[in-house]
Amino acid sequence: MPSFFLGVIMAKQTDDIPLVMGHAFTDHHTFHHYSEMNKERIYMDYNATTPLEPEVIQAITEALQDAWGNPSSNYIAGAKAKAMINQSRESVGSMVGGRAEDIIFTSGGTEVFFFVTIVMNANNLVLNTAVEHFRRNYRAAEQGEGHHNGSIACLPHIITSNVEHDSVKLVAEHLQKNGKADVTIVPVSRVTARVEVEDIIAAVRPNTCLISVMLANNETGVIMPLQEICQRVKSLNKQGERLRILLHTDAAQALGKIRVDACELGVDYLTIVGHKFYAPRIGALYVNGPGTKTLLYPMLFGGGQERNFRPGTENTPMIAGLGKAAELVTANLSDYESHMRSIKLYLEERLKAVFKDKICFNSHYPGSDILPNTCNVSILGSGLQGWRVLSNCERLLASVGAACHSVNGHRPSHILLSCGVPTQVAANALRLSVGRGTTKADVDAVVDDLRETVQLLEEAH
Amino acid sequence: MPSFFLGVIMAKQTDDIPLVMGHAFTDHHTFHHYSEMNKERIYMDYNATTPLEPEVIQAITEALQDAWGNPSSNYIAGAKAKAMINQSRESVGSMVGGRAEDIIFTSGGTEVFFFVTIVMNANNLVLNTAVEHFRRNYRAAEQGEGHHNGSIACLPHIITSNVEHDSVKLVAEHLQKNGKADVTIVPVSRVTARVEVEDIIAAVRPNTCLISVMLANNETGVIMPLQEICQRVKSLNKQGERLRILLHTDAAQALGKIRVDACELGVDYLTIVGHKFYAPRIGALYVNGPGTKTLLYPMLFGGGQERNFRPGTENTPMIAGLGKAAELVTANLSDYESHMRSIKLYLEERLKAVFKDKICFNSHYPGSDILPNTCNVSILGSGLQGWRVLSNCERLLASVGAACHSVNGHRPSHILLSCGVPTQVAANALRLSVGRGTTKADVDAVVDDLRETVQLLEEAH
Repeated sequence: MPSFFLGVIMAKQTDDIPLVMGHAFTDHHTFHHYSEMNKERIYMDYNATTPLEPEVIQAITEALQDAWGNPSSNYIAGAKAKAMINQSRESVGSMVGGRAEDIIFTSGGTEVFFFVTIVMNANNLVLNTAVEHFRRNYRAAEQGEGHHNGSIACLPHIITSNVEHDSVKLVAEHLQKNGKADVTIVPVSRVTARVEVEDIIAAVRPNTCLISVMLANNETGVIMPLQEICQRVKSLNKQGERLRILLHTDAAQALGKIRVDACELGVDYLTIVGHKFYAPRIGALYVNGPGTKTLLYPMLFGGGQERNFRPGTENTPMIAGLGKAAELVTANLSDYESHMRSIKLYLEERLKAVFKDKICFNSHYPGSDILPNTCNVSILGSGLQGWRVLSNCERLLASVGAACHSVNGHRPSHILLSCGVPTQVAANALRLSVGRGTTKADVDAVVDDLRETVQLLEEAH
Repeated sequence: MPSFFLGVIMAKQTDDIPLVMGHAFTDHHTFHHYSEMNKERIYMDYNATTPLEPEVIQAITEALQDAWGNPSSNYIAGAKAKAMINQSRESVGSMVGGRAEDIIFTSGGTEVFFFVTIVMNANNLVLNTAVEHFRRNYRAAEQGEGHHNGSIACLPHIITSNVEHDSVKLVAEHLQKNGKADVTIVPVSRVTARVEVEDIIAAVRPNTCLISVMLANNETGVIMPLQEICQRVKSLNKQGERLRILLHTDAAQALGKIRVDACELGVDYLTIVGHKFYAPRIGALYVNGPGTKTLLYPMLFGGGQERNFRPGTENTPMIAGLGKAAELVTANLSDYESHMRSIKLYLEERLKAVFKDKICFNSHYPGSDILPNTCNVSILGSGLQGWRVLSNCERLLASVGAACHSVNGHRPSHILLSCGVPTQVAANALRLSVGRGTTKADVDAVVDDLRETVQLLEEAH
């Protein structure tokens, strides 16, 4: 039985730290001013984290006031909290094309103020389940029926891509390093920046128990061919006499930006992260029929809440907020998507107009669909490294991707390098991700800011 | 290496479910009305859960609006979230007589909407640490130096009491059942209802690595002799050539009611549970010099936050609320304590006056100190079982203790039975726990309600 939850210190942090926290909303959002230079800062780091929608804050505050009781109580007043949670479960289920009963709320506390960790909790559940699934089924089959070739390793085999978030990557690496699982990391195509279906299928072995591929990459915005992967894997699963391969996607970056339907995709598990879609820092895991159609083994001791998959009574206020944010996505997704897409296109046009052939888009790949809000761009030239440009900008608040992380110094993003972006180009990358409230005026201001900053840096160089 | 985090389903729920969620505050709290009988309900179940103080809700709401960024960010605006968290850490540290650096915030999400699980998270950390501590040190010493007798079992040995909360009890039982640890459950005295120091010391073995005893019991309100236990164990630890025994107390019921000073007590670990002192459902663990003076091994993968002991960036809003609630406790504890004590005394006087020799207090034990807010009382007579009385009361909202739990049916509380309360008396027990805002008028109304209810039930019988 694996015991990889003990004694492990992972000092490495996520690559997804927002560069700064300040942001400027020109419409319905509160304006927060963090500039020391008396200029309004403009936040374009929505792939890192989003603020909460006012309706979401209101839902949380109301729940704090009214639903402090225990929703598991059988008596009169647990009812209010319980109704709130059921409503949220419905709303979150609807957002991903699932049913209320498919939604497992994951942690929303200490471990969820951060992208990596919400996903990690869901992903820990999934990886744990896969390993346990293998332990219970594969070995049993091997011993009982002798169907399998004796030369096959007895470790569970997991397939993932080389552009996954740390939450998958670190856990997979740890499982590999500690002899708990074999892991195949399939590289994305250096042309399309997608993980290609054939490459995934070619990596399948008799002992493969889990394939985990993100739905959209947080740096390039590239959308992965999950539906095709799932279709092919399900054909394999139907061939029988093999361990069922479980399918997982981390949909953190996709939700609230593009339509996500877990059934259409065909995944068994789908990770949901609140603070990417204007919800609080709480997560959820979609499981296609948890405990019936799809396995889920619990990780912690608990009191039977979340139908025993996660311990603890529900955190009603945060769940209420997540539900409200999911409702907003379901109701307004096409508006959000078209607004972000048009703003991003305008941003790309303006950048092209100002910087001309010095501009290089790291979020354009032939044949690949890209998130509507993500523009990864390099301004070519020496001395124009992403971190240098951003730290000299007066108004733009954005991120440079993985390389922004302090422990990595200023090395170019390994994600971009994996996607075939040349080192010198990757070093200059800026990830600009727009939000629901970003305006053309914001774009104009940001492009002006970039032009002035680049001019200054070129003169200084 | 133990692997008790996998594959475990604990369907049993906590014994600490609040009977209902509604409550009535006659002073500064919002009034929530859940009665279907058009009578104002009066909440006396503050040992189960407390509402949030308005200042606490305000602190959370402000943090939701202003501090949605990442406090780990090195850039300008993570500063605000970071400052909030540091302030809270100071406040929570002060409340328990510790330093800011001794405070590890534990989960505040799905798993913290419930007493059992907040404690459980802290307690999982502690139990995990103890087992790992044993693995690393005891066996090493045994192999390296040969100090220990070969006949000593190689399992870690844990001592706890028989009146602990499920969060300790279930985990200890599981460790025992799965051969991960030996557990000695020391019974409380049937006279004092306390776990006695000599009984704890008598249970110590060469392989004992952890003693976990709650600071105050949630049903009887009895305060345990932690300081004396710690003093005696520290003498043992000083004798050298033995494994250090770690000391843990679950202070959930004591905080906000009596003065709690971890240094004076002498514990290594102390569990803090927000929603028992008008804070949100987030917890913290006090560790005396985590990683330096006192061991703490992490349980989950993570991004280095909480100094690697717990993964995940801090949940700023909930932490801000916990800090504000801790500040209120530090500033006002003596007022809270004396108010609750005088109200409880008034309640006991009124009950005595009305029910005379039919009243039996299950929270009075010779020589034992009792929490200032806890009155566990039985009204003697057939047909007056606690659950029956409460379900017929028109205004009182309270709990019957462990037996209130639906899965236990209507059996008397095992806690009371352990304390020497006769079965027939325990069956009639009502746990009345008052709060900061409970008034004499509330007491009068509750006693009237009880008198009328008992009269009705006696007539019906």
